[in-house]
Amino acid sequence: MTDHPGPEHFHVYDTTLRDGAQQEGLRLSIADKLRIAANLDELGVTFIEGGWPGANPKDTNFFEAMRRGELTLKNSTLTAFGFTRRVGRRAADDPMIAAVRDSGASVACLVAKSHDQHVERALRASLQENLAMVADSVEHLVAEGQRVFLDAEHFFDGYRANREYALEVVRTAAEAGAEVVVLCDTNGGMLPSWMHDIVGDTAEIGVDLGIHCHNDSGCAVANTLAAVEGGAMHVQGTINGYGERTGNADLLQVVANLELKFGWSVLADGALAEATRISHAIAAITNVPGSPRQPYVGSSAFTHKAGLHASAIRVDPNLYQHIDPAVVGNDMRTLVSDMAGRANIQLKGEELGFDISDRELAARITDTVKERESRGYSYEAADASFELLLRNELGELAEPFTVHAWQVHTDYGDGRTSTGASVRLSAKGAEQEYRGEGNGPVNALDEALRRALLPAYPQVADYQLTDYRVRILDQGHGTDASVRVLIDTDDGERSWTTVGVGENVVEASWEALSDAYLYGLIAR
Amino acid sequence: MTDHPGPEHFHVYDTTLRDGAQQEGLRLSIADKLRIAANLDELGVTFIEGGWPGANPKDTNFFEAMRRGELTLKNSTLTAFGFTRRVGRRAADDPMIAAVRDSGASVACLVAKSHDQHVERALRASLQENLAMVADSVEHLVAEGQRVFLDAEHFFDGYRANREYALEVVRTAAEAGAEVVVLCDTNGGMLPSWMHDIVGDTAEIGVDLGIHCHNDSGCAVANTLAAVEGGAMHVQGTINGYGERTGNADLLQVVANLELKFGWSVLADGALAEATRISHAIAAITNVPGSPRQPYVGSSAFTHKAGLHASAIRVDPNLYQHIDPAVVGNDMRTLVSDMAGRANIQLKGEELGFDISDRELAARITDTVKERESRGYSYEAADASFELLLRNELGELAEPFTVHAWQVHTDYGDGRTSTGASVRLSAKGAEQEYRGEGNGPVNALDEALRRALLPAYPQVADYQLTDYRVRILDQGHGTDASVRVLIDTDDGERSWTTVGVGENVVEASWEALSDAYLYGLIAR
Repeated sequence: MTDHPGPEHFHVYDTTLRDGAQQEGLRLSIADKLRIAANLDELGVTFIEGGWPGANPKDTNFFEAMRRGELTLKNSTLTAFGFTRRVGRRAADDPMIAAVRDSGASVACLVAKSHDQHVERALRASLQENLAMVADSVEHLVAEGQRVFLDAEHFFDGYRANREYALEVVRTAAEAGAEVVVLCDTNGGMLPSWMHDIVGDTAEIGVDLGIHCHNDSGCAVANTLAAVEGGAMHVQGTINGYGERTGNADLLQVVANLELKFGWSVLADGALAEATRISHAIAAITNVPGSPRQPYVGSSAFTHKAGLHASAIRVDPNLYQHIDPAVVGNDMRTLVSDMAGRANIQLKGEELGFDISDRELAARITDTVKERESRGYSYEAADASFELLLRNELGELAEPFTVHAWQVHTDYGDGRTSTGASVRLSAKGAEQEYRGEGNGPVNALDEALRRALLPAYPQVADYQLTDYRVRILDQGHGTDASVRVLIDTDDGERSWTTVGVGENVVEASWEALSDAYLYGLIAR
Repeated sequence: MTDHPGPEHFHVYDTTLRDGAQQEGLRLSIADKLRIAANLDELGVTFIEGGWPGANPKDTNFFEAMRRGELTLKNSTLTAFGFTRRVGRRAADDPMIAAVRDSGASVACLVAKSHDQHVERALRASLQENLAMVADSVEHLVAEGQRVFLDAEHFFDGYRANREYALEVVRTAAEAGAEVVVLCDTNGGMLPSWMHDIVGDTAEIGVDLGIHCHNDSGCAVANTLAAVEGGAMHVQGTINGYGERTGNADLLQVVANLELKFGWSVLADGALAEATRISHAIAAITNVPGSPRQPYVGSSAFTHKAGLHASAIRVDPNLYQHIDPAVVGNDMRTLVSDMAGRANIQLKGEELGFDISDRELAARITDTVKERESRGYSYEAADASFELLLRNELGELAEPFTVHAWQVHTDYGDGRTSTGASVRLSAKGAEQEYRGEGNGPVNALDEALRRALLPAYPQVADYQLTDYRVRILDQGHGTDASVRVLIDTDDGERSWTTVGVGENVVEASWEALSDAYLYGLIAR
C-alpha cells in the first residue's frame, strides 16, 4: 500500500446504470436512471457510467435527456460506455464509436478484449488486429477531445493464459492515450492474493490502473481492495452490488472500506454518512429488496441479538461494533427478543425517541414484551409493532380508525378459485364498508381495508405491502398451531414491519395488516 | 500458501446451528436443527457445532436428542459450544462447563476473551484471571477426555490493541491442551491483508490455528482464505452465511474456493456437487430465502443475460464462467432447479422404487420438473409431491377421490373471529359434502376434507399435519406475489411433505393439502 498514489488521485467509478442493469429481473426506465444518477451525484462518486449509447434506445435516450439538462450533475462526471471499433473498420467510420463520441459525455469508457482466446475464438480476429482496434479507437476519441478509459475485459483470466498478450493490450491502450486502463475480472473467479500479484505486475507498465470485479467467488469487495493495494487508483462497482450472475463489487462497501479502513477520503465531504439512505433509496427505485445482512447499510448490519451483550454494549458500544454506524448513516439497533432484559428495552425505546428511563415503566413494558413474545410475537423483526406497543403502554396511541367487522372467503368450483373480502370501519366520524377482490385472503383484505380508509386518509394509496411471511410457531401441531405473520410495508419514503400472531392465519394476518396501516398513519 | 500444512490436515467447522442461529428473525426448532445437521453430515463437514448446551432448553434438548440417536452422523463429528469457566470459580465446579462436558459431544469448543479491554471492561476480570480461566477450563475438559478447541473472541481487535496479551491467550490455550485455537474476528471489521499478517505472526506459536470471520466489512470469505494462506487449518462458517448482523463467513463459498481455487479436497468425496441442493434445502428449513446472486449456489449465479454473450457461450461456455457450475451442483441456465439434471432425477426415482432408466422417459420427467420448478415448485423439499409427479408421468397415478368444490370463509365481528370450510367430493362411488371449522382456513379445509374422506378411507383419521410453511416467491410484490406452501404430514409411521404453488395462498395450500391426503392414500 505504501507505493500507492493514495486518495489524492483516486476515482470512484459507478456502473450501476450499465453493468448493474445487467442483473436478472432488473429493468430501469429512463426516469429510474435519472433518479439513480441524482443519488449517485449526491454521494459524490467521481464518475457515473450512464450506459451504452447506440446499443439500445433507452441508453441513447438517457444520454439525450442528460444533454437536455434533465439532470445537472454537481459532483460527478458522466461517462459513456462503448466497444472498441469493429474488426476491419476504421474507428472514425464506426457508428458505435460515433455514438459514444457524440453522447455528450466528456469521458468514454471503451471495452476491449485482453484474453487471447477471446480475441481468436469469440471476436474471431487476429491478436494483432485486436491491438489495432484498441489503438485506433482510443486515438480517435482522444483526438476528438474525449477523455478515454479502457476496460480490459477478461484481463485476469487472460493474464493467466497469456501474460505477454494481456500486458500488451494495456500497453497499447496507454500509448494510444487512455488515461486509465481498467483491469476486469469479467468472470469473477479471482481471489485477493492472485489479484494483488497480477495488478502489482501490471502496474510496472506505468499507466494508471483501474479495477472492475464481479462476485462469483464471493470476493469482489476484497478483490477490489487487493487491487488497490497492488496499485489501482480507480475502482468500479455498483450500488448494492447489482449485476449479472452474482453481481458486481458493491461500491458502497468498497468505498466504506477505503474511507474507514484505509483512512482515505474518496467521496464528497460528508457523503459517506448518506450511504445507508442512498443504498435504500436506490433499492426502492430498482424494486430489488436489499438484504438485511448487507455490510454497512443493511437493516441488521449493526443489530445485536444476544441479550448477554446488551449490558456490555452500554459500557462501550465500540467494543461490539467495527465502526460507529452513524458514519455510514446506519444505526445500532438492539433486538427486542425473548431473551431481552430491561436494558435492551430501554435502549430500544431511546432509539425510537421515547423516554423510558423510569425503571418501573421500563419493567412494566419488559413484562408486556416478554408475555407477548411467549405467545409468539417477535418484536426483533417488527419495529413498527414494538413502537405501537410502546405508545400503547405510554398512553400515547392514537386511534385514527376503528374496525367493526371484516370477512373474507375463498371458493373453488368448476376448476376456478376466487377470493373476496369486505371491511367495515369508522374513520374521522364516518362509517365505511368496502369490498375487495384479490389473489388471496390477505390481498383481498388489504384491498378492502385500503378502500375503506382512502376517503379519510388519501395517503394510504402509497402504502405498498412489499413482503408477507408466515411461520408456524410450534411444530408438531400443523395447521392447528399458532402462526406468526410478518408484513413489510413501504410508502416510498419509509418502510416498516408489523407482526401478528394467532391460531388463525387470517386473523394473525389481519392484525399485522391493520397495524401496518395504523403505524403508517400515526408514526413520524 | 507454500508453508501451509495443506488439505490433508484440515477442518471444515460448521456453526450454522449455533452462531448462524443468532441471525435476526431466524428461529430453529429441535426438528429443524436435526434436519440441518443431517444435511451438514451429507455435505461431510468435519465438525458440526450443535449449540450451547446448558444455555437454553432448546440447545440442551438438541444434544439429548443426538444422544438418544435421533440422528446418527456418518461423516461429521458433533461439537458443543461453551464459555470458559466463570470468574473466580473452578472449572470442575462450573455447571456451564459441566453441561458441555456431559453433552455427549466428543469435542468442546470453548470461547474465551483475548482482547484486554473486553476482559477488563466487559468481563470485569483481571488479565491474569482470564488466562487462568482459559487454562483451567481447557485442562479440565481435556482431563475428562474431551477434545478441546478454543475460540479466541475479538482476537484481531485484541491483537491490534495489545498484541502480547492476545498472543498470550493463544499460548495459554495451547499449553493447556487445546487442539486448535480459533482466531475470531468477532466484530467482522478486518481486511484480508491485515488478516494474513496477523495469522502469520500468530502461527509462530506453533499451535494449529482456526479462523472465524463475520462479514461486516464485506470480506468474510476473503478474510477466511487470507487466514488459511497465513497458516490456519480450520475454517469456521455457516451455510448461506447466516449469523448476527451481516452474518458469518459463508461456509459453502469458503469450501468451494478451497476445493476449486486452491485445489484442495476438504469435503467428503463428491459432496461439493451437492452444495447447491444442500444450500437450498437448508434455506427451506430456516425459511430465510437465499439471494439469487449468492456465489456458487444462487439461482442466478451462472445465469447469463441473453444477447452479447449468447453466441460466444456456444463456442465455449468456459470462456464465460469461472467454474463449471455442475461441480457445485448448480446449472448454467435454469432458475430454480435443484434436481435439474436427468441423472439426479433417475437416481431419485430409483430411491423411490421406480424404474426410469429409459432415457426418453427420464428426459420428459426432467422437463416437467424444470417447468414446474420455474413456476416455483420445489421438489427438493417435497418428496411426496415428486412421487405424485413421477406416478402421473408414468401413468400410475390412481385417483382415490375427486374433488368437485370447496370453499372457506373467515368472519370478524363483535370482537370474535370464526373460520369455516366445506368440501364436496366423490370417493368409492359416493359423493360426500362435509363442513369443517378451524383455527384458520387451512385447518378448516383440512377438517372438512378429512371428514369427507373418512367414510371411504378410515385411515385418514391418523393423518396429522405437522408443519405448514409459506414462502413468498417474488419479493417486491407483497401479498400479490406467488407463494409456495409446504405441508408436512405424519400418520404415526411415515411422514411426508407436499408442495403447492399459486398466487392465492389458500389455493396453493389446498394443493399441498389435497396432495398430502392423496399421497397418504396411494403411496407405500
